[in-house]
Amino acid sequence: MKRACDTEVRPPGQSIANRYSGKTVVAIGAHPDDLEIGIGGTLAKLRQHGAHVVMCVASIPRDYDVRIEEARRGAEVLGCELKILMDGGPQRIEDVKTCDLVGMLDDMIREYKPAAVLTHSKADFHNDHLLIYQACLPTQRLAYFDFFSYHPTNCRPVPIAFHPTAYVDVSDTIDAKMHAITAHASQFGGRGLDTEMYREFAHVQGRMIGVPYAEGLDVQRMVLA
Amino acid sequence: MKRACDTEVRPPGQSIANRYSGKTVVAIGAHPDDLEIGIGGTLAKLRQHGAHVVMCVASIPRDYDVRIEEARRGAEVLGCELKILMDGGPQRIEDVKTCDLVGMLDDMIREYKPAAVLTHSKADFHNDHLLIYQACLPTQRLAYFDFFSYHPTNCRPVPIAFHPTAYVDVSDTIDAKMHAITAHASQFGGRGLDTEMYREFAHVQGRMIGVPYAEGLDVQRMVLA
Amino acid sequence: MKRACDTEVRPPGQSIANRYSGKTVVAIGAHPDDLEIGIGGTLAKLRQHGAHVVMCVASIPRDYDVRIEEARRGAEVLGCELKILMDGGPQRIEDVKTCDLVGMLDDMIREYKPAAVLTHSKADFHNDHLLIYQACLPTQRLAYFDFFSYHPTNCRPVPIAFHPTAYVDVSDTIDAKMHAITAHASQFGGRGLDTEMYREFAHVQGRMIGVPYAEGLDVQRMVLA
Amino acid sequence: MKRACDTEVRPPGQSIANRYSGKTVVAIGAHPDDLEIGIGGTLAKLRQHGAHVVMCVASIPRDYDVRIEEARRGAEVLGCELKILMDGGPQRIEDVKTCDLVGMLDDMIREYKPAAVLTHSKADFHNDHLLIYQACLPTQRLAYFDFFSYHPTNCRPVPIAFHPTAYVDVSDTIDAKMHAITAHASQFGGRGLDTEMYREFAHVQGRMIGVPYAEGLDVQRMVLA
Amino acid sequence: MKRACDTEVRPPGQSIANRYSGKTVVAIGAHPDDLEIGIGGTLAKLRQHGAHVVMCVASIPRDYDVRIEEARRGAEVLGCELKILMDGGPQRIEDVKTCDLVGMLDDMIREYKPAAVLTHSKADFHNDHLLIYQACLPTQRLAYFDFFSYHPTNCRPVPIAFHPTAYVDVSDTIDAKMHAITAHASQFGGRGLDTEMYREFAHVQGRMIGVPYAEGLDVQRMVLA
Amino acid sequence: MKRACDTEVRPPGQSIANRYSGKTVVAIGAHPDDLEIGIGGTLAKLRQHGAHVVMCVASIPRDYDVRIEEARRGAEVLGCELKILMDGGPQRIEDVKTCDLVGMLDDMIREYKPAAVLTHSKADFHNDHLLIYQACLPTQRLAYFDFFSYHPTNCRPVPIAFHPTAYVDVSDTIDAKMHAITAHASQFGGRGLDTEMYREFAHVQGRMIGVPYAEGLDVQRMVLA
Repeated sequence: MKRACDTEVRPPGQSIANRYSGKTVVAIGAHPDDLEIGIGGTLAKLRQHGAHVVMCVASIPRDYDVRIEEARRGAEVLGCELKILMDGGPQRIEDVKTCDLVGMLDDMIREYKPAAVLTHSKADFHNDHLLIYQACLPTQRLAYFDFFSYHPTNCRPVPIAFHPTAYVDVSDTIDAKMHAITAHASQFGGRGLDTEMYREFAHVQGRMIGVPYAEGLDVQRMVLA
Repeated sequence: MKRACDTEVRPPGQSIANRYSGKTVVAIGAHPDDLEIGIGGTLAKLRQHGAHVVMCVASIPRDYDVRIEEARRGAEVLGCELKILMDGGPQRIEDVKTCDLVGMLDDMIREYKPAAVLTHSKADFHNDHLLIYQACLPTQRLAYFDFFSYHPTNCRPVPIAFHPTAYVDVSDTIDAKMHAITAHASQFGGRGLDTEMYREFAHVQGRMIGVPYAEGLDVQRMVLA
Repeated sequence: MKRACDTEVRPPGQSIANRYSGKTVVAIGAHPDDLEIGIGGTLAKLRQHGAHVVMCVASIPRDYDVRIEEARRGAEVLGCELKILMDGGPQRIEDVKTCDLVGMLDDMIREYKPAAVLTHSKADFHNDHLLIYQACLPTQRLAYFDFFSYHPTNCRPVPIAFHPTAYVDVSDTIDAKMHAITAHASQFGGRGLDTEMYREFAHVQGRMIGVPYAEGLDVQRMVLA
Repeated sequence: MKRACDTEVRPPGQSIANRYSGKTVVAIGAHPDDLEIGIGGTLAKLRQHGAHVVMCVASIPRDYDVRIEEARRGAEVLGCELKILMDGGPQRIEDVKTCDLVGMLDDMIREYKPAAVLTHSKADFHNDHLLIYQACLPTQRLAYFDFFSYHPTNCRPVPIAFHPTAYVDVSDTIDAKMHAITAHASQFGGRGLDTEMYREFAHVQGRMIGVPYAEGLDVQRMVLA
Repeated sequence: MKRACDTEVRPPGQSIANRYSGKTVVAIGAHPDDLEIGIGGTLAKLRQHGAHVVMCVASIPRDYDVRIEEARRGAEVLGCELKILMDGGPQRIEDVKTCDLVGMLDDMIREYKPAAVLTHSKADFHNDHLLIYQACLPTQRLAYFDFFSYHPTNCRPVPIAFHPTAYVDVSDTIDAKMHAITAHASQFGGRGLDTEMYREFAHVQGRMIGVPYAEGLDVQRMVLA
Repeated sequence: MKRACDTEVRPPGQSIANRYSGKTVVAIGAHPDDLEIGIGGTLAKLRQHGAHVVMCVASIPRDYDVRIEEARRGAEVLGCELKILMDGGPQRIEDVKTCDLVGMLDDMIREYKPAAVLTHSKADFHNDHLLIYQACLPTQRLAYFDFFSYHPTNCRPVPIAFHPTAYVDVSDTIDAKMHAITAHASQFGGRGLDTEMYREFAHVQGRMIGVPYAEGLDVQRMVLA
């Protein structure tokens, strides 16, 4: 590999911020904080460039009042609309049949007509995350939106075989992301947990495309032109 | 899946023709006709929308004069620039060391500074196609261009485990594609081989995104914003 | 690949219609219409060549009377025996524990002593299809029948990473298949949905073995001699 | 799994010995002894049931006279025709370009018009075995023969990720297999190497289909009916 | 491969019995007999070398009194502590929500602070085994123990794509393993089922590392130094 | 995942520094600097704990005098023995046949009788790295050493699907690693290339096992006990 390393080619300036400009993007996470951890920088960036971004939190398993307030703060920091799929009180995703969960997601797709959907990855190991991923898969039959998975989200690091195929430059929104994560005080500060690893991780991802900070996505289905 | 099938959501109009507009796209195929078969419709479309498209043919193993003429015709039909990587006469890809092949491709990347590179897939079974794919991989270290693989290309169908993650609507350029394929008379008409299967295949791919014709790509690396 | 393409070798005439002749084949689908879509042509062919073919529909989630009648029509068109696993009224597969579902399938295996079992694929994304696939896996311990998966079945196309390893020539039974699919009027005609894509898809699959129409299977376990 | 284990269902008698009866089967191995180790029992069985079986040995890297004589003995024990692809003296597979190797295999396919081809697996780690596997892949475009891979072949055991999807009952021919392996005295007895592990391995494979001895195959492409 | 086979290098004596000596190892199986079948030899060996080994049986679906007594006998033979996760009477794993199952396993991890956890594999096809595997995955976030999967466990052989990356020499404890398996009389002797295949299988695994008997593990996460 | 995150379990102190103490470990890299980048911290640590560590560099493609001197400095910093496999002057790995390369590696295995071998990964995309990985695979038949792959090594970051299953804590040797990398001045400082990303990457890997710095390995074959 050394042979060609002595001449660097500049990366072309490929802004696709306008890909979703003026359109709706729906991001789906199992619980509050998943979206901030997984794609907080991406969502803030999309918002800044004129997309309508819906942060859909599937359920709040407990501490409903505290956590819905944290979710609102996180969404506010990122400039996004918050939607609680199973709202009205604490609920667990497992308490709903998959066919009913698909039905709720179908309704949301019909309502928002998103240009892109971003959700958990099949590489995740949290059962609720996998249930959401599985339930999002069939919604693809309703429309031809772009469909992406984001990096598995944990409050503590566990090695996982997730390999991004697309990278979003979030250098301008990394601070918003970190700010949105810390909005979930009950999950981090309140338990003495550090959030700095998310910044470090975004920095290493940024190395992959030559920018200070990036988030990785796995492209599941994309309509090009 | 039946439950939600009774209401169809319209696919949002997501034109990204301008993603590569005014930029250079380099498509790399092992031999003449590979690019026409694999992504003829995509290349014509990119061209129509203002990209500078380079069709790079790695080598012409024999019948040099006939096949380079066919390659020129194919590129002309699609409106693209033709570049023969190993030019000057018949050569086989295997006759070049991989490190030298990488060197040639590196030079091309440095010269054209492409916004996207499209090449063969690791799912292909033709040894020359795999050699080109392998040699393209390390060129990614030189710049952060988008990197895609296209469907394995054969003159006769063999089942192959290729799974597209992106689809290009080529409804407007399917005729140009078919025209460009038939420009390779020595490979098809001259041997009594039918090219109709490429149209059929593009039609079935089109079903995946609700358009008359499409070509599938496997996203290897993409820079989003 | 061009080098050898100028001489075609004729495919040898390998009829294995008698592999299952005089034996029982059990095909298992989650809901009415899955078997017709996935392997309608194969089932009709097996029947024509003297196999006893059981179309096992796991459940009818709703519209019981209408859909059981459609299932009967579909089975009749294909000449097969229909069996409703969870009969007596509308039921959802998710409402049964997996161990109980395995128990029902075990009983069926013991009763029919099939020479082959065909069911959904792990590549499918419909949760009920996956539940049936998972529940069929352990039935393999009861006897050494051939075990195949068929292509994911949807009423609308979604890209799926299913790669057949075996192909059945259904040129003689494609019309029966199409006829059987349309028997499910509540799922297709009644919702304005087109079924023509199934014919197109079978035609492209047929290209893989040089026949007008084929269906692809993924060989999971096969006893050769 | 315990629930259903108390009642065993008898495996149905599914003889497919006549699948290839009266037809030609071509088995391809890199060097002498590979075919005996990988599928000696299968080849002997096919022969006993009336198939014309060609054992194609790609090359003899050294000790030509000794090893060709051993190869003849092995083929004789199994009742098969021996063909040396690169004959006339010691040659290494690596000394031939892949495109030329494909050309030789193409010629053989055209000559023998096989109903089935069996060769090494992509899971093998011996470079020559992989070269043969890769070169066999494109021959599939010439005709619609069944195409199988056999278990990686070594003179000493190394863990390998090979997963059979088909099993051949070789209980009647295991002795012929063992006899044919030991015909390669220069590789085993002459080096103090034990061959008993091949019998043990066939016995454990036999457990998978309820017979004393079996060989596993990975189905790559199969035409059913 | 023949070239280098004439000189054998002796395997270096790498005892790591002391890796877990004086530490706690937790082995988790869905039902009684799974641990004996999967890693009985490994557990006995760890015990003999001074590890504290906990055999955690997740549930006893029925015949509680008989099977808990058999589980006690099996654990006694291997010299291990027995723990029934869902104790007090017959229960099915499916009757517990995954989040509650994870909670129980979390509690066990916190209590025992294991240096290693061994559990089922994702390659298993028994639904209860998969549920246990899935529920063990997130426990990795609580501490940095080694995490291994063992071979799928069945009372009758079914081909499964499990490929070990580590092997434990159980030559000294194979008899204890076989003894512990037969302690589950209700599952084997009582149903006329043979256990000899487990010895044969361990012998073939032993071939992979040059010892009489071995058990294979798939390394999921390991902390080296 | 939130439920259990409020109580952290301390990682058990599992030193295996003595696993290879007093034994020989052979690390194989295609070119100078690959071993320092991939596993410099691991090698220094093994050395510090009494292993005999051989850094085997397969070839020096050019600038022989400069680069062999850098390789010597790198090995010296890590305290390891340097061995140039294809020594005496500049050579390219591609210029040697694979069977000859395997022969050289076989000889080295016979000479050093290593307890462990560490080499490139199949996930790497540099052709020379893959050639070395492929050639190391068959050496496993000669002895039962532990066999690991390390992370793909590049001078510029490219996303690669490598997934470690084992982690080595290199907190005490990260400085030695960084020092050894910079010894390759012609590759980094001399070209204005930054090496800081290797420290960042080791830090993120360290997160996975709760230490400041770690290196990831993929376990290919390991003998436990």
